[in-house]
Amino acid sequence: KTHTDCMTSRNIVKLPGFIDVHVHVREPGATYKEDFETCTAAALAGGVTMICAMPNTNPSIVDRTAFDYASTLARVSARCDYALYVGASSTNYDTICELAPQAAALKMYLNETFTTLLLEDMTIWQKHFQSWPKKMPVCTHAEREKTAAVILMASLLDRPVHICHVARKEEILIIKAAKERGVKVTCEVCPHHLFLNSNDIDKIGKGRAKVCPVLCSPEDQAELWRNISIIDVFATDHAPHTVEEKNSENPPPGYPGLETILPLLLNAVHQGRLTIEDLINKFHRNPRKIFNLPEQPNTYVEVDLDYEWVIPTSMEFSKSKWTPFAGMKVCGAIHRVTLRGEIAYVEGQILVPPGFGQNVREWPMPKKQTFQTYSIEKVE
Amino acid sequence: KTHTDCMTSRNIVKLPGFIDVHVHVREPGATYKEDFETCTAAALAGGVTMICAMPNTNPSIVDRTAFDYASTLARVSARCDYALYVGASSTNYDTICELAPQAAALKMYLNETFTTLLLEDMTIWQKHFQSWPKKMPVCTHAEREKTAAVILMASLLDRPVHICHVARKEEILIIKAAKERGVKVTCEVCPHHLFLNSNDIDKIGKGRAKVCPVLCSPEDQAELWRNISIIDVFATDHAPHTVEEKNSENPPPGYPGLETILPLLLNAVHQGRLTIEDLINKFHRNPRKIFNLPEQPNTYVEVDLDYEWVIPTSMEFSKSKWTPFAGMKVCGAIHRVTLRGEIAYVEGQILVPPGFGQNVREWPMPKKQTFQTYSIEKVE
Ligand SMILES: [Zn+2]
Ligand SMILES: [Zn+2]
Ligand SMILES: [Zn+2]
Ligand SMILES: [Zn+2]
Ligand SMILES: [Zn+2]
Ligand SMILES: [Zn+2]
Ligand SMILES: [Zn+2]
Ligand SMILES: [Zn+2]
Repeated sequence: KTHTDCMTSRNIVKLPGFIDVHVHVREPGATYKEDFETCTAAALAGGVTMICAMPNTNPSIVDRTAFDYASTLARVSARCDYALYVGASSTNYDTICELAPQAAALKMYLNETFTTLLLEDMTIWQKHFQSWPKKMPVCTHAEREKTAAVILMASLLDRPVHICHVARKEEILIIKAAKERGVKVTCEVCPHHLFLNSNDIDKIGKGRAKVCPVLCSPEDQAELWRNISIIDVFATDHAPHTVEEKNSENPPPGYPGLETILPLLLNAVHQGRLTIEDLINKFHRNPRKIFNLPEQPNTYVEVDLDYEWVIPTSMEFSKSKWTPFAGMKVCGAIHRVTLRGEIAYVEGQILVPPGFGQNVREWPMPKKQTFQTYSIEKVE
Repeated sequence: KTHTDCMTSRNIVKLPGFIDVHVHVREPGATYKEDFETCTAAALAGGVTMICAMPNTNPSIVDRTAFDYASTLARVSARCDYALYVGASSTNYDTICELAPQAAALKMYLNETFTTLLLEDMTIWQKHFQSWPKKMPVCTHAEREKTAAVILMASLLDRPVHICHVARKEEILIIKAAKERGVKVTCEVCPHHLFLNSNDIDKIGKGRAKVCPVLCSPEDQAELWRNISIIDVFATDHAPHTVEEKNSENPPPGYPGLETILPLLLNAVHQGRLTIEDLINKFHRNPRKIFNLPEQPNTYVEVDLDYEWVIPTSMEFSKSKWTPFAGMKVCGAIHRVTLRGEIAYVEGQILVPPGFGQNVREWPMPKKQTFQTYSIEKVE
């Protein structure tokens, strides 16, 4: 157990349930890497009470049949709440938009990565941008100049766009410039781009360190922190693979991240690099606003702000038995997670069964979203 | 001689001197491919009385020393008028802007091509865009999504940008969308993307057909014609290499084009795909406006609209002794070219010596540019 007892430290505060909008569950198609049951256990252990599941599965979620299939799997197995992405393909722009009300968002892959969903041609981007409802989010894997290209196209078509896993100086700076000119663009950053850089590759191991976008230069990393106010969302890009795969000749890209994101961010709060307000805004409120996600009633995460620990070689619940953050000393740990009134996690134990998680897109939508202000409550 | 006598046909009209804003002279550094003397002879034989010379020479034109050196070479050898580009490098953004008043424009290479001047990072694009004077043109080799990226950056920085050699549907369509929203972007298209496509590669030969941007699909080509009103400028991207190089194992990209562009465009007029007004706008007026180039006094091109001929295996004056247009039957030929009152070319003969050409950036700039309307004069 990584964190069985933090009774020695008692600076526990109550935070909202966190929302990770970028999670690769690997079910259907690669459940030996991860599945809804293990992925959502890892989420809860990490203080995440809602995930948005990416569509680059097998089959990929590009039509109603695949979407319904994944929905059934999730309904049976998820322990935390969730919504499911649909994926843009080169041919489904006329049909996939029908799933918009039920989907977390539309995901568009504009770079070569761990997917078959690459959209290479801007004319295809345009078709998706035009047919997907403007009120529903579109998320893009769009690195480097593709960040700028997709922002131009969204702005010309007068629709919002969300940029996944911003990693580079050139990316955050063009997003900043676009925001300053009123362009409707939002963006997310992952813990591994905030807390690791290319100098860490040797320590992690060259093969294991493979991730997409890559670990960038210390200058890129510093620029993310310098522009922390531009970053709307923190998300893991939880991308589990087996240790054997990551150690192999041609390792697939991606890191597990659900069980480490909150401790790493709490540690940044501890170091004064982030405020608790930043954390709540970027890991709860903004995901809700951008993705139009409902408030989970009676849902909160109690964290111990003063508990110091060292991230072990692997975390407890993900099937991906390694972490690029192994050996990092962090201050801050998840004590207890309450999901819709039930204690879902406490001190290393998952207490809710598979099937407890609900698809939040099946909840009735309130007329007007509410965004509570959290008075950070100290728990005695 | 390709066109020695067209006395059999007598539908001769007088057009303005044409301006080719995209010419690779190859001097300094590769004069075995082409030099100012041969390049400007080819220009005049093609009805082009002014060229803008690209900076990817050896040395490349990235500082005052190289610029002065190229200027001296041009002054001695050019037969037609000219202006010289300067090239953006990853380091010269603070200094190259000093040459703006003397330069044709700033050229930025954003794709891998026949140059050492690749600018990979958008932060470098931004520095050049900010330091180069807004009134002076910036030209970019920016294919596919880089077209969109560079348009976004220019528009966020509120400066105009010119896109070189647009070749693809996705490129012309994003430019169209940007223009419709008032973004200050202009673009040029080359004859080989208007008159050839990927189906011609076998006939041309796979190695010889190498060009950058590549010959695209018939659909891409058709979309250029469909959006002819969006195209501001016709330019050759005259990129001479020796036949031996083009026939070699690893041929360099590029086609000669100066001697064939006007006949090909006249043929399009003959076919009704283009009007004479389009031709004058896109190959004379718009280059002048976009690049702020002066009117050449007493300068005109007499063309024979009805002369039919077949483009031979190579043209007369360029050192690059081949053409991708060999075998094409065209209607329209250059009869006589008058440059600043002197007959510079007539019926296959160049009549002005090296050194007759002038650097138009050394001419006194008129307070206000004038743009004549041409009454297409029939010459008896
Ligand atoms: Zn991605
Ligand atoms: Zn991802
Ligand atoms: Zn909330
Ligand atoms: Zn605890
Ligand atoms: Zn080019
Ligand atoms: Zn060129
Ligand atoms: Zn004129
Ligand atoms: Zn003639």
